[in-house]
Amino acid sequence: MASEAKESASNNPGLHTTPDEATKGYIMQQTMFRIKDPKVSLDFYSRVLGMSLLKRLDFPEMKFSLYFLGYEDHASAPGDSVERTVWTFGRKATIELTHNWGTESDPEFKYHNGNSEPRGFGHIGVTVDDTYKACERFERLGVEFVKKPEDGKMKGIAFIKDPDGYWIEIFDLKTIGKITESAA
Amino acid sequence: MASEAKESASNNPGLHTTPDEATKGYIMQQTMFRIKDPKVSLDFYSRVLGMSLLKRLDFPEMKFSLYFLGYEDHASAPGDSVERTVWTFGRKATIELTHNWGTESDPEFKYHNGNSEPRGFGHIGVTVDDTYKACERFERLGVEFVKKPEDGKMKGIAFIKDPDGYWIEIFDLKTIGKITESAA
Repeated sequence: MASEAKESASNNPGLHTTPDEATKGYIMQQTMFRIKDPKVSLDFYSRVLGMSLLKRLDFPEMKFSLYFLGYEDHASAPGDSVERTVWTFGRKATIELTHNWGTESDPEFKYHNGNSEPRGFGHIGVTVDDTYKACERFERLGVEFVKKPEDGKMKGIAFIKDPDGYWIEIFDLKTIGKITESAA
Repeated sequence: MASEAKESASNNPGLHTTPDEATKGYIMQQTMFRIKDPKVSLDFYSRVLGMSLLKRLDFPEMKFSLYFLGYEDHASAPGDSVERTVWTFGRKATIELTHNWGTESDPEFKYHNGNSEPRGFGHIGVTVDDTYKACERFERLGVEFVKKPEDGKMKGIAFIKDPDGYWIEIFDLKTIGKITESAA
């Protein structure tokens, strides 16, 4: 008899395996974190990671702006600015960078990346074509590493830092299965 | 002459609008945050939000487990456990819940949601079919709200809390354009 999948309800107390009809069509749309300086973060996420700016929203009264980025072809975004918002919120897997105006001018200002106390949020993760090749490029571009792919136990997985110090995990589909085999 | 899109490079210092070929095929795959009790979080994300458990990875030596959830049909997941890992890491927009074993038994234990000092991470966001309808259901299910859709300035947008207190923004495509029109 085949053993039940590790991911079955019987192996995971609390898990419901039949989604409620009411949740049909729900999408995991965004991950929001605050950034100090949009100029620096836009450069990093577009030039280094290859994301596109899908939408910017500005709230002058409350002095903040939101930058939605993701792996989408921005050429397919609608020309109309409100339609572009709707289009963006219909895309899966965007990051939403919140810029509270003025933080970029304060040399002492720093956000918390969640990986020191008090902990909570850990990282975002990007699947690349080849982790080692991607990391060689990141090194050439001067990206800061938390863990290079050849470091530590989990060889073939890397962690880089974005300009605010948030962690980004880097892995590829050619090697992730083998790397995590004993945990699978 | 049509004005240039707000999202153009000229309006956004630092932005590169032509992704480097090296980043082709990259996907925004995961958002990781730590949870206190998988039983409670699996119930919330599967029953309340309708996500599926795509993959679980266990690391007994380091005493932690990872739960990857997302809006994917888990019936299409491969039967082989390693292939299922690879399949999962090829999906966009998953959440990765990290459970450090034992935290569920410590009544004092609590993670930081990033929205009080020190701030950083803010929330994840889920696009639903109808925000008011979804929120009525969340209320019936006893979900805690940070902001109900009718509260505050941004009417039609809600924030709920997951069992660890992480914020989840709730919006729909029928109303998000109008709600954010003046910011677009």
